[in-house]
Amino acid sequence: MTAQEILFRSARRADLPSIVRMLADDDLGSQRERYESPLPESYYSAFEQIDNDPNHELIVAEQNGEVIGTLHLMFLPSVSFQGGLRAQVESVRVDKRFQSQGIGTEMMKWSVERAKQRGAHVVQLTTHKSREDAHRFYKRLGFKGTHLGMKLSLK
Amino acid sequence: MTAQEILFRSARRADLPSIVRMLADDDLGSQRERYESPLPESYYSAFEQIDNDPNHELIVAEQNGEVIGTLHLMFLPSVSFQGGLRAQVESVRVDKRFQSQGIGTEMMKWSVERAKQRGAHVVQLTTHKSREDAHRFYKRLGFKGTHLGMKLSLK
Repeated sequence: MTAQEILFRSARRADLPSIVRMLADDDLGSQRERYESPLPESYYSAFEQIDNDPNHELIVAEQNGEVIGTLHLMFLPSVSFQGGLRAQVESVRVDKRFQSQGIGTEMMKWSVERAKQRGAHVVQLTTHKSREDAHRFYKRLGFKGTHLGMKLSLK
Repeated sequence: MTAQEILFRSARRADLPSIVRMLADDDLGSQRERYESPLPESYYSAFEQIDNDPNHELIVAEQNGEVIGTLHLMFLPSVSFQGGLRAQVESVRVDKRFQSQGIGTEMMKWSVERAKQRGAHVVQLTTHKSREDAHRFYKRLGFKGTHLGMKLSLK
């Protein structure tokens, strides 16, 4: 737990450099992101789509006016589970300088509450098999690793 | 491969009973769906949301005028991967009477082509760890089981 209050809010266009910096700042992210100035336009066009879609919430966590974490919460209507709404979390990152202070936990708890508010029956996510710390982190929050996450790259 | 042609099209409201019948027709599905007549209204309201959202495609596979398979293809804008679009497949089912005829393979190949058409950089899905046949099936199609899929039930 951190003593200082964390503010959660929707990301603004001006937050994109902070968000991309965090996405790029680990072994997997550094291979696939381009944290440059200016950022590649593709980041901005994705932001516009996310920002205009009420089923998507790109969130930043702020402390003392500084962006220190991000996550993308999506709400997925589905026929299965009796037409139940799913919440999905992607692109969760905490700034390296602020890790191990409970900020990720606060971010996920906020997401779970938000998912409940919006009527989702489940929160789902996938995490790379190599991220064992993340597996333990999500298990502590009550997540169960019941599924295999499979990907087919089209590039 | 099946000798008879399979038609892929967007699901209509009138297809919902066929879709729910297939979703309910296995060990996991039978515990969570309600295949009744009339169907619970929640299926119809989910259908309306899906049908009105261009990022969602609820698909049926038809053979000789009969619905024999279904899948839900969703397109997820994302900041990560340089603002890359993801395709996600959920709720894949082939009618039990038509299994082991290559229909699931055709359905997935159709989905991958559709994902490419729409510019997605990846097709992602999760499948229950107990569905080992499904893991082999997706691996044959080129999917890699790189991720752990985690869920938190809110019910």
